[in-house]
Amino acid sequence: MTIYDDEIFKMACDQFQVIADYLNIDPNDREWATYPKRAVAVTLPVHMDDGSTKAFQGYRVQHHIALGPTKGGTRFALSLSMGETAALAMWMSWKCALANLPYGGAKGGVAVDPTRLSHTELEAVSRRYMQEMIPFVGPHTDIMGPDMGTNEQIMAWFMDTYSVYMGYAVNEIVTGKPVAIGGTEGRREATGRGVVYLVERAMNMLKIDPEKCTAIVQGFGNVGSVTALSFAYKSGVKVVGIGDHTATIYNPKGIDVKAAEQHVLKKGNLRAFAQGDHVNPNEFLTLPCDVLVPAAVDRVIHGRNAGQLKCRILAESKACKASFGPNRK
Amino acid sequence: MTIYDDEIFKMACDQFQVIADYLNIDPNDREWATYPKRAVAVTLPVHMDDGSTKAFQGYRVQHHIALGPTKGGTRFALSLSMGETAALAMWMSWKCALANLPYGGAKGGVAVDPTRLSHTELEAVSRRYMQEMIPFVGPHTDIMGPDMGTNEQIMAWFMDTYSVYMGYAVNEIVTGKPVAIGGTEGRREATGRGVVYLVERAMNMLKIDPEKCTAIVQGFGNVGSVTALSFAYKSGVKVVGIGDHTATIYNPKGIDVKAAEQHVLKKGNLRAFAQGDHVNPNEFLTLPCDVLVPAAVDRVIHGRNAGQLKCRILAESKACKASFGPNRK
Amino acid sequence: MTIYDDEIFKMACDQFQVIADYLNIDPNDREWATYPKRAVAVTLPVHMDDGSTKAFQGYRVQHHIALGPTKGGTRFALSLSMGETAALAMWMSWKCALANLPYGGAKGGVAVDPTRLSHTELEAVSRRYMQEMIPFVGPHTDIMGPDMGTNEQIMAWFMDTYSVYMGYAVNEIVTGKPVAIGGTEGRREATGRGVVYLVERAMNMLKIDPEKCTAIVQGFGNVGSVTALSFAYKSGVKVVGIGDHTATIYNPKGIDVKAAEQHVLKKGNLRAFAQGDHVNPNEFLTLPCDVLVPAAVDRVIHGRNAGQLKCRILAESKACKASFGPNRK
Amino acid sequence: MTIYDDEIFKMACDQFQVIADYLNIDPNDREWATYPKRAVAVTLPVHMDDGSTKAFQGYRVQHHIALGPTKGGTRFALSLSMGETAALAMWMSWKCALANLPYGGAKGGVAVDPTRLSHTELEAVSRRYMQEMIPFVGPHTDIMGPDMGTNEQIMAWFMDTYSVYMGYAVNEIVTGKPVAIGGTEGRREATGRGVVYLVERAMNMLKIDPEKCTAIVQGFGNVGSVTALSFAYKSGVKVVGIGDHTATIYNPKGIDVKAAEQHVLKKGNLRAFAQGDHVNPNEFLTLPCDVLVPAAVDRVIHGRNAGQLKCRILAESKACKASFGPNRK
Amino acid sequence: MTIYDDEIFKMACDQFQVIADYLNIDPNDREWATYPKRAVAVTLPVHMDDGSTKAFQGYRVQHHIALGPTKGGTRFALSLSMGETAALAMWMSWKCALANLPYGGAKGGVAVDPTRLSHTELEAVSRRYMQEMIPFVGPHTDIMGPDMGTNEQIMAWFMDTYSVYMGYAVNEIVTGKPVAIGGTEGRREATGRGVVYLVERAMNMLKIDPEKCTAIVQGFGNVGSVTALSFAYKSGVKVVGIGDHTATIYNPKGIDVKAAEQHVLKKGNLRAFAQGDHVNPNEFLTLPCDVLVPAAVDRVIHGRNAGQLKCRILAESKACKASFGPNRK
Amino acid sequence: MTIYDDEIFKMACDQFQVIADYLNIDPNDREWATYPKRAVAVTLPVHMDDGSTKAFQGYRVQHHIALGPTKGGTRFALSLSMGETAALAMWMSWKCALANLPYGGAKGGVAVDPTRLSHTELEAVSRRYMQEMIPFVGPHTDIMGPDMGTNEQIMAWFMDTYSVYMGYAVNEIVTGKPVAIGGTEGRREATGRGVVYLVERAMNMLKIDPEKCTAIVQGFGNVGSVTALSFAYKSGVKVVGIGDHTATIYNPKGIDVKAAEQHVLKKGNLRAFAQGDHVNPNEFLTLPCDVLVPAAVDRVIHGRNAGQLKCRILAESKACKASFGPNRK
Repeated sequence: MTIYDDEIFKMACDQFQVIADYLNIDPNDREWATYPKRAVAVTLPVHMDDGSTKAFQGYRVQHHIALGPTKGGTRFALSLSMGETAALAMWMSWKCALANLPYGGAKGGVAVDPTRLSHTELEAVSRRYMQEMIPFVGPHTDIMGPDMGTNEQIMAWFMDTYSVYMGYAVNEIVTGKPVAIGGTEGRREATGRGVVYLVERAMNMLKIDPEKCTAIVQGFGNVGSVTALSFAYKSGVKVVGIGDHTATIYNPKGIDVKAAEQHVLKKGNLRAFAQGDHVNPNEFLTLPCDVLVPAAVDRVIHGRNAGQLKCRILAESKACKASFGPNRK
Repeated sequence: MTIYDDEIFKMACDQFQVIADYLNIDPNDREWATYPKRAVAVTLPVHMDDGSTKAFQGYRVQHHIALGPTKGGTRFALSLSMGETAALAMWMSWKCALANLPYGGAKGGVAVDPTRLSHTELEAVSRRYMQEMIPFVGPHTDIMGPDMGTNEQIMAWFMDTYSVYMGYAVNEIVTGKPVAIGGTEGRREATGRGVVYLVERAMNMLKIDPEKCTAIVQGFGNVGSVTALSFAYKSGVKVVGIGDHTATIYNPKGIDVKAAEQHVLKKGNLRAFAQGDHVNPNEFLTLPCDVLVPAAVDRVIHGRNAGQLKCRILAESKACKASFGPNRK
Repeated sequence: MTIYDDEIFKMACDQFQVIADYLNIDPNDREWATYPKRAVAVTLPVHMDDGSTKAFQGYRVQHHIALGPTKGGTRFALSLSMGETAALAMWMSWKCALANLPYGGAKGGVAVDPTRLSHTELEAVSRRYMQEMIPFVGPHTDIMGPDMGTNEQIMAWFMDTYSVYMGYAVNEIVTGKPVAIGGTEGRREATGRGVVYLVERAMNMLKIDPEKCTAIVQGFGNVGSVTALSFAYKSGVKVVGIGDHTATIYNPKGIDVKAAEQHVLKKGNLRAFAQGDHVNPNEFLTLPCDVLVPAAVDRVIHGRNAGQLKCRILAESKACKASFGPNRK
Repeated sequence: MTIYDDEIFKMACDQFQVIADYLNIDPNDREWATYPKRAVAVTLPVHMDDGSTKAFQGYRVQHHIALGPTKGGTRFALSLSMGETAALAMWMSWKCALANLPYGGAKGGVAVDPTRLSHTELEAVSRRYMQEMIPFVGPHTDIMGPDMGTNEQIMAWFMDTYSVYMGYAVNEIVTGKPVAIGGTEGRREATGRGVVYLVERAMNMLKIDPEKCTAIVQGFGNVGSVTALSFAYKSGVKVVGIGDHTATIYNPKGIDVKAAEQHVLKKGNLRAFAQGDHVNPNEFLTLPCDVLVPAAVDRVIHGRNAGQLKCRILAESKACKASFGPNRK
Repeated sequence: MTIYDDEIFKMACDQFQVIADYLNIDPNDREWATYPKRAVAVTLPVHMDDGSTKAFQGYRVQHHIALGPTKGGTRFALSLSMGETAALAMWMSWKCALANLPYGGAKGGVAVDPTRLSHTELEAVSRRYMQEMIPFVGPHTDIMGPDMGTNEQIMAWFMDTYSVYMGYAVNEIVTGKPVAIGGTEGRREATGRGVVYLVERAMNMLKIDPEKCTAIVQGFGNVGSVTALSFAYKSGVKVVGIGDHTATIYNPKGIDVKAAEQHVLKKGNLRAFAQGDHVNPNEFLTLPCDVLVPAAVDRVIHGRNAGQLKCRILAESKACKASFGPNRK
Repeated sequence: MTIYDDEIFKMACDQFQVIADYLNIDPNDREWATYPKRAVAVTLPVHMDDGSTKAFQGYRVQHHIALGPTKGGTRFALSLSMGETAALAMWMSWKCALANLPYGGAKGGVAVDPTRLSHTELEAVSRRYMQEMIPFVGPHTDIMGPDMGTNEQIMAWFMDTYSVYMGYAVNEIVTGKPVAIGGTEGRREATGRGVVYLVERAMNMLKIDPEKCTAIVQGFGNVGSVTALSFAYKSGVKVVGIGDHTATIYNPKGIDVKAAEQHVLKKGNLRAFAQGDHVNPNEFLTLPCDVLVPAAVDRVIHGRNAGQLKCRILAESKACKASFGPNRK
């Protein structure tokens, strides 16, 4: 029994076995190639606004360091386990390798629900987490980034905590930081744009005319909203379905995506957005469309609905739910 | 759910709550005081003698660093878990605090059965474990020592691996190393002598004459054999029972402990030692004696036999089974 | 014009010239021997309890490092200037040299009135000061200690801030810390006992019988109270005068010093202490006595009162007003 | 009272208040934003050629480190004070911010008249200054450059002293070093060219034809001479006035600037340069011209002469008097 | 007598004197400019496959560090001496200087015949050599590369050994490593291509038509084979002679160089290559040709054969015999 | 051929073989046990008083680091070679091992005749040597001390050069430094006293009465003079012969050793010392005496005179000629 034993890590290992068989990887090289090089757990005592002290568990997993530093996001989620963190780190290794980047994969996070923390508490958790990580990370060893439950502000706190320690500004320690302190322009839109770029390539290969296509996009965060906007105003694809965790809207005549974006900026979600029919979320993915983009949570397509999909192009995207509620400043 | 969740860690936390109630420790200070400051897990790929590669899991837990470096042993045991390691580290903190030593507690180890490794494999596991630990330990941060399944030789490998990295001999990095490279003389006998020292103090308080006493000592390793020898040849106590995992021997006329020691040095255990009756191990602890010393494994006295003990002084000792079999050189 | 140009630094330089003439020190070696090796000023932005942000100036001067690390106290005083800090550092060098200790002198502090800070603000100022000092101090370079306006608690904050940075407990970074985290026992009483030890040696040289002597002690802090108590209960000297900044009391029949100590522990000062006459503070030092100990502030004996002193032994002591009021926890 | 209290620092703070009001900066953020993060003063004992030892005062101020390393020149001037150094550092911060460079501002120097030092003494002062600065500077923390009274040679000494310490050549530690050891080509001409570039843009906006313009350039060092040459031979502007501290020359028919340059290379200054009338320096700036470039010392335009200027374009340039006399090798 | 005193170092010093006279270098600057800044010798105990332990001598010489890190290859050759290593390091300095690269020269190696080591022994020697070099090398101090007797695999071992020490992948520590871990594409062919590039420039200057030329290339390793192939298939030069240490072949009608390359890939050398006459190696260089490229070992042209050369262009190339036999994996 | 190949290193290796045979050391462990772990050679360019620049060769050999730091003296001698340095380092290892000290042996030095250097030149050579050694030495790696041709002053320069680099006083870096900066009292006399202590033990074993003995002491430096004085005024042995490189004096009635000491302090040597006969130095060692102490140079007793010695006790001492002439300040 190891500290990684849970369902999600097992799933990642099973995926590895399939590919390893396909690539004829020596069985002797499989065990150490799945288990991470190194995992760290830290206890984070934090003074809460109500005067109590809570102790959160923070994690960081570095999958391998053969090619250069490790690199990977930081997830703040109540259910976060070491096994999930290890699986995410391994997947990060694979992504870097496929893109031929000289990095190993890493991942980390805190088992905390960030939506239940005040702004002050969130800063305290974030800074203490980075402080405990100082011996394990660095521009040459392990670089952090945002992931579910973390955002630009948290990256700025990470960078500041690390920089105070080093005695000078070290903006190489995190990706996903605000542009003002060295962040990359266009980062927020990058995933959505990538989805559209690949869908366009698929259309080209399949000889499909974008102007005659319809699309359904599930999710309306950083990824889904940019995808839908790019479909509508750049590719010329008619967006017939959009949705978030509050509403799933279908309109075969096409949805005014800019209006939806404005609505969400004002109201926070799509619940009251009136352009189209609010349909049953369980049936949303199987409605007629040429392109289907699930950009909300993972594992929404499975044995029970796969056969019913109507789309010609299925473009799964990585949903990185970077935003959260009350403590957003 | 944390990486520490198992029975032995829960037991340690429960012990803490009892004392914390007694000492009126603020409930806000209890959670972070039980969970360790920091825990590290590493994967150790090792080339085995048969040409295969195995990946072992290694652990290190540092409980708190408020007073100085942490300090604690290294356990090689197949069943070793992170929870057990964390419990052992916390107990180490308590021991240091009670002895007023400026250390926090630590503990580490590898989930491996050292008796199934060849000498070469054992060296490989030991050196790789220390190599992965280099970023986390040091004379000012965390000092290792032997524990169950490790011995002087392994401490020497640890020291050498660390010293090669530093570029000079660092003998402060481990305790329990051979005297020739800076180890402490008398360390092997220290626990047994401590047991006898405390038994003598108890006898003095109880106005018991050692020369009229009898003793049973369970276990004949570093602790039990030294205890029995000291009883017999220093305190003048008559040793009427000795035992190891192969034999439990009782002789109300007294046992020639030096002969037993010679026997074990030659044969490896007490199985064929003929001075006295070989009795049922389950009844051994409840045989008549003035002093009873359980020095083999933990949790041998429990609700089912506590009422049947005949001894006047019960001296529980910490058994540190430092020796093991085939790979001993 | 340098950053040290003020009256107190000039006084120290003048003292140096007198001795340098006496010792025939080469004129070429005098300038660099008075100016400090190195001085650092830092700005300390602190969030105050009322929501405002104030920026305090912090200083540290290291006089010379020829023999080993520098060493010296930390003063929190509104009037603190760089010149005063430099003078105090130079005096510290001389003290170390006279005691043949392998240290150079240092001194530091913050231009702040600690009595006007809340406990929270005081911690914030103290921790920020140490944080800014991290590049300049260390067990091998410069060791801090308490001085006027700082105390054990502040030293503990200094040590913790430095230790968090280093990643392990570094209690060598400050002297004067609480005994529980490595402080020296007897430190509080050391100066007062030293005064009495030297007065007794002087009495011995002058063939004076302590039991027939009277003493006046100005100041009733760490130094004055211990001095008065030691006179009364160890040397047998009759204490006829004590005083603090609230009251100066004279009683030719002798004062019950233990009663005075109890009074101060309860009330905070001597204002209402009734054993003896409350006399004019300006005349206090010139009242009849055999031994006079000024242990309050410096420069109380000068051209205008020197000729009127009645004492046979004048024992100037260094008054280190380590305690202060409302923020004391 | 702080170590920065002098007129020039006060002027910089006043400038800041004007802008801060304009930008609505929170009053709480103003105090710490003007006072420097950190200032260091060091004493530099130097053996002089006449056998004596002098102790010079060296300074370095780092204004803020929020965005990256600090950066700024080194001034050797007898009158240099800590306040002036702090003002220059703050101005450097503003310049970097306006140019959107990821640097904070710094400035340093030695209170010494470099023209009165021999070449040997100048090297000794320079090397000792850098040696004392080693703990405070570095490619990631603070980068030095030349300023008034320092030049390429001094930067080379700084680089060598720092590199010997590090054990390898660190040419990132200084800007303004000789091209042969990694300096930037074109650096000497950069300021003058920048002046001309901006004047040309102004002419373009004002619809002025350069070929019909006249210019007066005050100063004939790195900045002034390059400015005048560029006007004459690149922009086609007729240069009617040039001057240095020895002569101010006016010729409404135009001056042969290349001849002036050759003259200065041979004679060291313009004193005997015969092309034009040698006019009263006090009236020089108010002579008729289209473009006026003060490139000598600061604060030459003030309430008493501002109303009399005849120019249409006033291009103030930063004069960096990098050259000096007898010790120039 | 120094540790460098042998013939090859003396030759390099003599070369330096010739040039130094030509450049009028101050005699005072000549001695230190020839002797290396620093030389290190280490003893490398290695367990051999037959159970014995051998102790090899390893060297590293760093010629000067004035401009940046040193840089240079690693030679494994039984006859390697410190003097030869120093000469090679000095030549490396000259090469870097001529190419205007900010490096000093270095060279190192082990006195071992790599063709007599098994793959395991070669790895052991290589890793131990790098381990002993760790205090002396680094991306900022000294960078290694391959040379005679070493290859890509050895560079990979060097990089791995260094990276394990640093805790992260440091591919800047060696040049000449495999492309997969950061090596430069085209490195193997670079020298041969450079030879041809220069020969083509010479032909152009001499108005020679390549298509009407013949060439003889001595050596058929990395340099010779690439040179011959480029002549034949890129420049259009007819290759009439090729050779290695097993055969020298001449064919005035031209040799099929691709066939020769295939032959060597299969057989390991040219011994049995049948296209042309196998001629006396001593006469090979003096056979008729327009271009002669000695690309095997050094010092093949000397007083006894210089007068007999028939070529119009003599293109000496650096032969880097990077390949070797039985332990090649 | 290695850099150590000379007669003295060969002699040390031969000595090792004799003992290794005696101790049955595995032949596989002999080669690496004689060759040093590491040797460094550096070139020291020094500006001489006459304006020229000379380049001296400096060496340092570290024999083994298995037990702790290495330790050993620094020799300034024109004939110094790397082989001699390596032999001395190995002997130092043996000495430490015999005394059970946790050190390996080291030795270093410069190939220079210190008696031909001015005080300024000697300081320059010494400081440059230490500066080049900084990467290789340290309190945990290698500690220097004096040896032939070096003295307290040179150790002080070493310590200062190293301390400036570290930024604080590091007196652990050298032994044999002046007492004022942390040197050990009694060090100068230690060798001579050790000789006498051992001679007294030998006398005791041989039942010889010191008061009836005569002694001849060759050499009158730190070792010889202290030996002779201790014989005469502590043991009661009659000293009948003393000598230095200027005179060898024999007086069967006994020599007034204190007078000789005074004579040398005044005149610098024994040349004109008149108490006794000035005898032929070649015959000096074979004159009649009970105890013979050769304390000048090594290898004075050999096959040609061994048979002629008259002494009963032959006490060879290590002569450390620490003093030298004109540059002594």
